[in-house]
Amino acid sequence: MFKINDNYQKLPGSYLFSTIAKKVAAYTQANPKKDIIRLGIGDVTQPLAPAVINAMHKAVDEMADAATFRGYAPDLGYEFLRNAIAEHDYKARGCDIEPGEIFVSDGAKSDSANIQEIFAQDNKIAVCDPVYPVYVDSNVMSGRTGTYDAVSGTWSDVVYMPCTMENQFAPEFPKETPDIIYLCLPNNPTGTTITKSQLQEWVDYANKVGAVIIYDGAYEAYISEGDVAHSIYECEGARTCAIELKSFSKNAGFTGVRLGYTVVPKDLKCGEASLHGMWARRHGTKFNGAPYIVQRAGEAVYSPEGKAQLKEQVAYYMKNASAIKSGLQEAGYTVFGGVNAPYIWLKTPDKMTSWDFFDYLLEQANVVGTPGSGFGPSGEGYFRLTAFGSYENTLKALERIRKV
Amino acid sequence: MFKINDNYQKLPGSYLFSTIAKKVAAYTQANPKKDIIRLGIGDVTQPLAPAVINAMHKAVDEMADAATFRGYAPDLGYEFLRNAIAEHDYKARGCDIEPGEIFVSDGAKSDSANIQEIFAQDNKIAVCDPVYPVYVDSNVMSGRTGTYDAVSGTWSDVVYMPCTMENQFAPEFPKETPDIIYLCLPNNPTGTTITKSQLQEWVDYANKVGAVIIYDGAYEAYISEGDVAHSIYECEGARTCAIELKSFSKNAGFTGVRLGYTVVPKDLKCGEASLHGMWARRHGTKFNGAPYIVQRAGEAVYSPEGKAQLKEQVAYYMKNASAIKSGLQEAGYTVFGGVNAPYIWLKTPDKMTSWDFFDYLLEQANVVGTPGSGFGPSGEGYFRLTAFGSYENTLKALERIRKV
Repeated sequence: MFKINDNYQKLPGSYLFSTIAKKVAAYTQANPKKDIIRLGIGDVTQPLAPAVINAMHKAVDEMADAATFRGYAPDLGYEFLRNAIAEHDYKARGCDIEPGEIFVSDGAKSDSANIQEIFAQDNKIAVCDPVYPVYVDSNVMSGRTGTYDAVSGTWSDVVYMPCTMENQFAPEFPKETPDIIYLCLPNNPTGTTITKSQLQEWVDYANKVGAVIIYDGAYEAYISEGDVAHSIYECEGARTCAIELKSFSKNAGFTGVRLGYTVVPKDLKCGEASLHGMWARRHGTKFNGAPYIVQRAGEAVYSPEGKAQLKEQVAYYMKNASAIKSGLQEAGYTVFGGVNAPYIWLKTPDKMTSWDFFDYLLEQANVVGTPGSGFGPSGEGYFRLTAFGSYENTLKALERIRKV
Repeated sequence: MFKINDNYQKLPGSYLFSTIAKKVAAYTQANPKKDIIRLGIGDVTQPLAPAVINAMHKAVDEMADAATFRGYAPDLGYEFLRNAIAEHDYKARGCDIEPGEIFVSDGAKSDSANIQEIFAQDNKIAVCDPVYPVYVDSNVMSGRTGTYDAVSGTWSDVVYMPCTMENQFAPEFPKETPDIIYLCLPNNPTGTTITKSQLQEWVDYANKVGAVIIYDGAYEAYISEGDVAHSIYECEGARTCAIELKSFSKNAGFTGVRLGYTVVPKDLKCGEASLHGMWARRHGTKFNGAPYIVQRAGEAVYSPEGKAQLKEQVAYYMKNASAIKSGLQEAGYTVFGGVNAPYIWLKTPDKMTSWDFFDYLLEQANVVGTPGSGFGPSGEGYFRLTAFGSYENTLKALERIRKV
């Protein structure tokens, strides 16, 4: 008789955003006339940039003609896209990353969930707390996290690095030495980040203790301050300890287009084993490339028109972030983030729990946000709002929140 | 110090098609003027059908307007696509599969590699020999296959079901009872298949011994004979033992578009645990949906125009298959497949090994095929040609083969 992967049984409840979706659906069914504003899940609302649209139409036309039709893509992704990434995201920033170290994928979520596969099961992972749930859940599914304690909401074999008001949301070196360190900077969910010199300390630490940093840079496009690194490879020594994940979802609105990439430097080794070679093997065996049309769309993101149009789109969302931040502050809330990231992280009022505040906001203001405790125990008492709504809805939501 | 997943080190050499690509590249570099015809990898050459192209242009336009823009897709895929699949691929064939049991993905390769994750590590897999390498390699990466014996080319903990001339390429129930049985029918690489009543025997066997069948139906559109099942759910009892994988790559030319789906019936359980629930959790945690544009392209495959256009496309490739089959037979080759599948499986002449015949064909006829031994030890002495070239190239390749 076949047996299942028991690790799945350990996962507590359902995925955070599925729970939110169910709660909202139940409320909407009971109150069909209410106008709900969703500032919960980090999904974009602005249409794709004209440069991207044009590139996709052109690519679709190529697929209609046998002479220009494209079948299976190269394993690592098309050269035109890898070259554009290497040029604009790395060379232009003085980072030593070549196109052959870039793996094009269907998005940073898949990569951030799959990357753990190339590591041994008994590696110890360290995560920030609060944290994007996928890092932990994908390790739970692989049996790397030990047992779950429902009271504390933590796993016995995971090293947690609390990020709270008390340490300005900057993770500190853990007491127990980890093997794999997940860092998402600028951070989801707190909307905060650390300086380049703080990041350099993490790179030095990883090289010293022999750890790998999985660096999720999905929100890089939102960095507005000068002393923040746009890539971990701006730090000295990152080529021997860091894997970087990037997304096109937030800088170019590709949440429904699906494109991302992962950088595995050829200098990243465990003894003789090259992690680059392992990820290449994983990619070649378990994945078949992002669609040609989507890779052309990605290339257009780096064109002069694309860059100009997307700069405006990012500015649009950051105007929302700024409005939420100042609006909430005026209403007496304690608020973080929103300067280098499209997320606002607020302290719940009157010591409400995160889920109580979720229900309160949904019922009283018909605004959907994300409970901080859904991202980890240190997220309790916090709440996330995103800047990805329309400007009109964002202002409307703020007005409602201020009234309740 | 971090450690790697040692199972990767066990993988012998590189992925079959990467090896072929390297050999062809080396030959091309040494002989730049030679005109190579590729009948090796199963990649299509005909452009996308007009109905599909129109649907993609329309979807791209929707992404250009905030009112119709689509962000993250629903976890299981858009309802419009799941409904079309359920209607045309299942209900129309009398199969009891509902839209909620269908998981839309970025292709059958990913699903066939990832599906093993929801099973325990100590399950024993059974595969046909020869076999599509992804089934075995993905299990090697998960540590489920024991040790590799380079002499026999087999894994100690894998149950092999030889499919050769001697048994008409139909797998037989293995002596050792497996937990997970991979069946690809119509078969890649042999191009052969079994009857519906033979498939029913496999379903009965799986239910009796408590095994799961992973049924890869990627080549279903090429079935031309009446007594062959188009879905395993045509067989009684399949809902309690079978997972079905389907691809849009071969029936609609989506190799560079990337779309597939997996059916996990809600009746498929291990004790109280629902495999449907587990795959849903895996999908929700590690994947973020196929692109909206691609899902609309998939919907168009089921439109009246799309169906008519793709029937012609399949007929075009099957005309190639027929030409290869009769041409090789006339030239004195022993040939199989090509009736219900776009693959021709030939016996190498003069007891040549598969790789010797590969080199011989590449050098003498400048035709690229796939060595049978690359698919498993029982593939030794066989060779695969695909019908996915253009008709002109197919005839040209045949003429060259006949001359050498």
